[in-house]
Amino acid sequence: MTVHISSLSSERKVNMLNEIYAYRRKAFYYETDKMGIVHHSNYIRWFEESRVSLLEQAGLPFEVIEAQGVMVPVLSAECRYKFPVGFDEEFAVIPKIENFNGLRFEITYKIVNPDNTVLYAEGKTAHCFVNMNMKPIRTQKKYPEIYDVFNRYVGYEVKL
Amino acid sequence: MTVHISSLSSERKVNMLNEIYAYRRKAFYYETDKMGIVHHSNYIRWFEESRVSLLEQAGLPFEVIEAQGVMVPVLSAECRYKFPVGFDEEFAVIPKIENFNGLRFEITYKIVNPDNTVLYAEGKTAHCFVNMNMKPIRTQKKYPEIYDVFNRYVGYEVKL
Amino acid sequence: MTVHISSLSSERKVNMLNEIYAYRRKAFYYETDKMGIVHHSNYIRWFEESRVSLLEQAGLPFEVIEAQGVMVPVLSAECRYKFPVGFDEEFAVIPKIENFNGLRFEITYKIVNPDNTVLYAEGKTAHCFVNMNMKPIRTQKKYPEIYDVFNRYVGYEVKL
Amino acid sequence: MTVHISSLSSERKVNMLNEIYAYRRKAFYYETDKMGIVHHSNYIRWFEESRVSLLEQAGLPFEVIEAQGVMVPVLSAECRYKFPVGFDEEFAVIPKIENFNGLRFEITYKIVNPDNTVLYAEGKTAHCFVNMNMKPIRTQKKYPEIYDVFNRYVGYEVKL
Repeated sequence: MTVHISSLSSERKVNMLNEIYAYRRKAFYYETDKMGIVHHSNYIRWFEESRVSLLEQAGLPFEVIEAQGVMVPVLSAECRYKFPVGFDEEFAVIPKIENFNGLRFEITYKIVNPDNTVLYAEGKTAHCFVNMNMKPIRTQKKYPEIYDVFNRYVGYEVKL
Repeated sequence: MTVHISSLSSERKVNMLNEIYAYRRKAFYYETDKMGIVHHSNYIRWFEESRVSLLEQAGLPFEVIEAQGVMVPVLSAECRYKFPVGFDEEFAVIPKIENFNGLRFEITYKIVNPDNTVLYAEGKTAHCFVNMNMKPIRTQKKYPEIYDVFNRYVGYEVKL
Repeated sequence: MTVHISSLSSERKVNMLNEIYAYRRKAFYYETDKMGIVHHSNYIRWFEESRVSLLEQAGLPFEVIEAQGVMVPVLSAECRYKFPVGFDEEFAVIPKIENFNGLRFEITYKIVNPDNTVLYAEGKTAHCFVNMNMKPIRTQKKYPEIYDVFNRYVGYEVKL
Repeated sequence: MTVHISSLSSERKVNMLNEIYAYRRKAFYYETDKMGIVHHSNYIRWFEESRVSLLEQAGLPFEVIEAQGVMVPVLSAECRYKFPVGFDEEFAVIPKIENFNGLRFEITYKIVNPDNTVLYAEGKTAHCFVNMNMKPIRTQKKYPEIYDVFNRYVGYEVKL
């Protein structure tokens, strides 16, 4: 029986997909405002926290990206607020990489209560890759490791 | 010669439109991140700063709104980042009230350099009016002062 | 043999001391500044996070305190910075309640690396109890539950 | 009549002392917390804002310092909170450079209401000069311009 190396390799890649979990924590006191609930700007920060966690769990921590001289600025961010989060309430952020093409990608987010029965907010950020001079970078040829991780996790549904 | 009270009154209102100016300040050190530029979440906060300034100049400070038991939560926020703002760089935020219907409104924003030749970012927030129990409020009947100010400044172009 | 209820009860209280653990997390990207390290103001926020965690673990979450109409403002805060914390670096905050007298208390903090071999920073906050009108409150008579928890955990050394 | 150049020059320097004004602005909405007042961590940030303003007015903006490869980290920070600042309330920060020795310096701060009749908070930060490798720097020989400005403004009382 003949086994094609390439299929093995692709199977191995599939097996190598780490399980990735939603990002969870509680809202801090200093994140609330005088309305008594978390200030809306902080959700944009929670998106980032979950993005960092997602990439870390995927085996490509931001530090590793930045150590290669690559930065990942935010091109746009948006959030729709559905239900307020109060002080010390636990939330989970569910990020999903979408529309990666080597040059740009988007991440969508849902912020939910711990058992995913209340949607607090949902949103999206768009990003590109740039070098230290803020010039856009195509990752496929120059940074195959980065390309590979994003490519494998496009559309990946994180576990709650 | 007959003068209609109503027309006088409407003319008076037009004359009463305060001149409103763009919101200006410099970026703070603590607003930067390790990329060396202002962290993207802060633009959402700058939108709010300009919103507060806009309403204050329009004669309806947030405190006056909140003193009546009315809060103005954010339903959604979005920002597109065009050019990074660095530490201590001056910027102007140009807000514009849009689509006010007594119940909800939107504000669009441009963040520009002092002489308005560089667009740093642009975005939009959507808001509604709620009471202390977070129930939506129609302002037209119950809060005519609030209604009136928003209504007069819909589409108003602030001065730079 | 006679057993005094009171001594039993006091013994039971001692046994009821929950184990409390240091507060741990990683530094967020947005907590860094253009120097490339965590901005010094955030350590003051980390103190608060650890304070909230300490009280929660002690069985007296802030929400429970505030639900009784009691607030715990900060009278003073101080921090000495020893070694910078970088993005995504894990740290532990070790809080200790000191000098509680029913009216006021202090908490000292050490921020260390995960295995407690590097001291990143140390500091102190002082607090009092006030009612919703910001008037100072003596907890011993009016809020014995609050008094009791603080009293039991004065000098308590949290586990790493 | 003979005029010594050196005395002229020294006189000129004295005359060249810029007038420096207290730093003023209003508290932002997002700076408040659920207690309804400005979160205590933000005062530490206001200290920094006033420090930046002080040096800028003294003719030595932070960017100029950092452009020479010199950073000015915070060694310690402390704040005593006297009276809460509410949303949109104007405050002035009065910084004063103290104990400069070429290597280190301290700045004390008072945060007051606009006409300086209410003391909201007072505090102190300590700083040193370091190079990009975080090694301490003596400014007197290597960075005389930096040395000179700090030296001239030690003890200087800013105008309200």
